[in-house]
Amino acid sequence: MNYPSVLIEEAVNELSKFPGVGKKSAMRMVLHLLKQQEQEVVKLGNAVIKLRTQIKYCNRCGNVSDAELCNICNNPKRNQQTICVVEDLRDVIAIENTAQFTGTYHVLGGLISPVNGVGPSDLNIDSLIERIKAEQTTEVIMALSATMEGDTTVFYLSRKVKDMGVTISTISRGIAIGGELEYADEITLGRSIALRVPYQGS
Amino acid sequence: MNYPSVLIEEAVNELSKFPGVGKKSAMRMVLHLLKQQEQEVVKLGNAVIKLRTQIKYCNRCGNVSDAELCNICNNPKRNQQTICVVEDLRDVIAIENTAQFTGTYHVLGGLISPVNGVGPSDLNIDSLIERIKAEQTTEVIMALSATMEGDTTVFYLSRKVKDMGVTISTISRGIAIGGELEYADEITLGRSIALRVPYQGS
Repeated sequence: MNYPSVLIEEAVNELSKFPGVGKKSAMRMVLHLLKQQEQEVVKLGNAVIKLRTQIKYCNRCGNVSDAELCNICNNPKRNQQTICVVEDLRDVIAIENTAQFTGTYHVLGGLISPVNGVGPSDLNIDSLIERIKAEQTTEVIMALSATMEGDTTVFYLSRKVKDMGVTISTISRGIAIGGELEYADEITLGRSIALRVPYQGS
Repeated sequence: MNYPSVLIEEAVNELSKFPGVGKKSAMRMVLHLLKQQEQEVVKLGNAVIKLRTQIKYCNRCGNVSDAELCNICNNPKRNQQTICVVEDLRDVIAIENTAQFTGTYHVLGGLISPVNGVGPSDLNIDSLIERIKAEQTTEVIMALSATMEGDTTVFYLSRKVKDMGVTISTISRGIAIGGELEYADEITLGRSIALRVPYQGS
């Protein structure tokens, strides 16, 4: 593409580095920015720069934090003996939004993926093992994606943790609540029958 | 949503102002940024800020430019007596990519849209009229979207220009090249029959 200005070319190139954003979407974003007030765009640019340069991570769980310890690790009302292991920040936010979990988290920062060159040493696994040893953890909940990478990571972690005297659990898998059986994929449906649970109602 | 850090909250809020970007997509963008090198993110932030604060517009046609006159207005090989009227920058880039047009452009900066509160005085229409008077323009090509707003704008402009001794034309409408008739909408198909042209082949 021929851009009428070097400034536009640079902005399109930078914005198209976002995942899922191509040159056309980046151009749409540039046009949007050109129509905004100058101070609004400066605010956006600075928010992005500050995000990356000033971000801190919780010393204990690896979650993003504004202080040494994150709000969750620092909260005496949370069960500090239960650790929910997640891939990243988004999972923490998603689980927190359910208001169903009162323990703490441990953010791995990714999943083991030999294809993408991610091994156990690239993830926050050593700090998890040390936490379990030091903090008399009673339960480790694996809340990882049901993908090849997620299953590999759960398998690796469970091997590491199994002799440490903690309960290991995984989040339940099955048909989504409100989900229709006929639209469920075969593997999920098959496993939801194999892993059936006693009826709790009435 | 509860964000674990003020920095993340600010970045999500700013990024979700882009059209078509919601809080979830903005969160995905934030996670992507957190995984990048610090200097890469600073480069993005500065490209966005520079884009808005240093951008210039061509004095003549209103297109984005790095100098007083844009590359197209400044090119003696272009037919300076033909003006192609477009909505914005993207249309200039799209038409330039076809390499089928050798005249100049005039960028309106929008379309007349009473619903959105955009009237003729909000667009670069006065400068177009003055250009036509001053530059002995021979042809004005309306290359605007085939929407209510586009048609309104073409109608308004044609009324303004019609006594100035220039040819007014619009880009042709019809079935796209390679397009299948059965998938065309009824209005386009109907108009493409009404506006049929003599066969040029063999």
